[in-house]
Amino acid sequence: MSNAVKVEVGLGERAYSIFIGRNLIEEAGERIAALFGDIRAAVVTDGNVACFHLDPLLSSLRGAGIEAAPVILPAGEKTKSFDALQEAVDAVLGARLERGDIVIALGGGVIGDLAGFAAGIIRRGMRFVQMPTSLLAQVDSSVGGKTGINTPRGKNLVGLFHQPRLVLADTGVLDTLSLREFRAGYAEVAKYGLIDRPDFFAWLETNWRGIFDGGAARTQAIAESCRAKADVVARDELEKGDRALLNLGHTFGHALEAATNYDGDRLVHGEGVAIGMALAHRFSTRMNLASSDDAARVEAHLLAVGLPTRVADIPGSLPGPERLLDYIRQDKKVARGALTFILTHGVGKAFIARDVPASEVLAFLKESHPG
Amino acid sequence: MSNAVKVEVGLGERAYSIFIGRNLIEEAGERIAALFGDIRAAVVTDGNVACFHLDPLLSSLRGAGIEAAPVILPAGEKTKSFDALQEAVDAVLGARLERGDIVIALGGGVIGDLAGFAAGIIRRGMRFVQMPTSLLAQVDSSVGGKTGINTPRGKNLVGLFHQPRLVLADTGVLDTLSLREFRAGYAEVAKYGLIDRPDFFAWLETNWRGIFDGGAARTQAIAESCRAKADVVARDELEKGDRALLNLGHTFGHALEAATNYDGDRLVHGEGVAIGMALAHRFSTRMNLASSDDAARVEAHLLAVGLPTRVADIPGSLPGPERLLDYIRQDKKVARGALTFILTHGVGKAFIARDVPASEVLAFLKESHPG
Repeated sequence: MSNAVKVEVGLGERAYSIFIGRNLIEEAGERIAALFGDIRAAVVTDGNVACFHLDPLLSSLRGAGIEAAPVILPAGEKTKSFDALQEAVDAVLGARLERGDIVIALGGGVIGDLAGFAAGIIRRGMRFVQMPTSLLAQVDSSVGGKTGINTPRGKNLVGLFHQPRLVLADTGVLDTLSLREFRAGYAEVAKYGLIDRPDFFAWLETNWRGIFDGGAARTQAIAESCRAKADVVARDELEKGDRALLNLGHTFGHALEAATNYDGDRLVHGEGVAIGMALAHRFSTRMNLASSDDAARVEAHLLAVGLPTRVADIPGSLPGPERLLDYIRQDKKVARGALTFILTHGVGKAFIARDVPASEVLAFLKESHPG
Repeated sequence: MSNAVKVEVGLGERAYSIFIGRNLIEEAGERIAALFGDIRAAVVTDGNVACFHLDPLLSSLRGAGIEAAPVILPAGEKTKSFDALQEAVDAVLGARLERGDIVIALGGGVIGDLAGFAAGIIRRGMRFVQMPTSLLAQVDSSVGGKTGINTPRGKNLVGLFHQPRLVLADTGVLDTLSLREFRAGYAEVAKYGLIDRPDFFAWLETNWRGIFDGGAARTQAIAESCRAKADVVARDELEKGDRALLNLGHTFGHALEAATNYDGDRLVHGEGVAIGMALAHRFSTRMNLASSDDAARVEAHLLAVGLPTRVADIPGSLPGPERLLDYIRQDKKVARGALTFILTHGVGKAFIARDVPASEVLAFLKESHPG
């Protein structure tokens, strides 16, 4: 097998390894058989990913003696629904898998969240392997065990914590991503530097082109991101404290996604996070928590890689500041009406700020709003 | 508050208490407020239970300053479905509960399994209180954290382990049960004696009338059953080993339920378990594992309380022995084709028998079959 980089997620009896490198789809059969022995599998994926990567994966599994049933769902965020969950569960049960068998998620964040949820509830918990095919999924959604679906009442309001037993992040598959999608995933990479890894952020400022080009820098950046997320998750698996740091940029970002009706043509998640991180730094400056130099530095790097940083960068008209504040209040991280934000004392110095005054947020949104 | 009996379920950071006694619905508000402080609640129940017990519960909660939203689902096994799950989840989200708030299940096993599942997946896990209103739920389904729904492919194939934070078993509500339903629950009480508590079984042989009449013997029997189940669950929360002992009588029982299309007019779960336990003891005798005196003693006690013990006791026609064996194979506890049964060396000496030869089971079914 090739020399993939290995990152351990230290969760006691739920500990698992993430492998990062090229050709991991081709090696999946061998690696899965080595870990699980004589099992069967279901591969949950979507129509787009299936075109590129399903056959190589199935043939790798077959080569290792693993019979696998493909479960192909429609591509897109709509697949994170009760209906698709029910469809996936039924298909896995129909493949007559037993509790010791495995569910493999081959796809981006939507497939990972849905397949992980399905695996978590079939026979009260089947073993689960993540094979993330987007940069976003490789550095974020495939690490940490959050799974879930959306409901008409909000995103990710339904789901559970179900840790994978193995993550195989094939960095070669990222070559097929659009530049826009790659950039959106990169926002989450930068986030880890901004939370508590200032050296990593400085390294990104110098090396980001290598990450986009592929090769060693890409593998290194993904591995460091996984390490960063794994550290936080190991400290706080169920998000009772520190894990909220991972929401840097997400409170503003989610509100902007909601304000654009989750229209991916206007704003994808990673872009919302990029704008949200820039806003969180500027808001921290406004609250006299951080220097304006730091906010400018963050914005400069996001702009350099081609990410948006301002509310005005979103095409089309947006609701006014008061309505944006409503969206922030509706975010599920609002506890009993008080506003919780991830703010910062500077690059790599993020912290959880509870009881942020709504009046300050509103004033800031008014200053930031293009309207 | 009254002198309820308290049973501790020792599950480390998921440990919780079961209170058993009269008037616990009236005391629920006080007890819940003492444990959880300033929270809101949703009460998931069904139309039948709501008639008797919802108003007293809501008024007890209100008296303790707890605002509670009722969620009333149709009564019956059909409520253990994806559709009802989605309905319950939506209703709880619609009540704007937050992650620290609680979901209360007020009802029998169906409501407990469904509400527990919903609580386990809303916001990736809400706190959950069981208030079981049937004998079966008080001694079995409300202890141990198994939650779930049925699918067209089988019963309880979808769900998760989600432990309650508190169980309030009001023994007074059992006065409203039909004799048939009470007897069916009693089968699970007897099961705990048969698994590994021979003294309890002997006590039941003497005291069963008192349990049916209510009063101290009833509370004592429920408490001992909860203790028995809690012991097994504490040893093996996720059913990787010993917990399978709780399936005594269930492999045969589930097959008989399936063979009667889960028609509750012909056979309810507890009756299937009663016949299944009698069969498990007779099959153990046939395999030269236990004496025929033990099998006769078990059958005599089940008959004394009015429970069925023979396949022929089920009204209407049944599929033949080969088809019954198919149902046994389909039971989810079949691992990779080998038949696993809970067999016994005598009263209170049950054990997990793996690799039971299908030919022996078939021969036994042919002897036991009325056709």
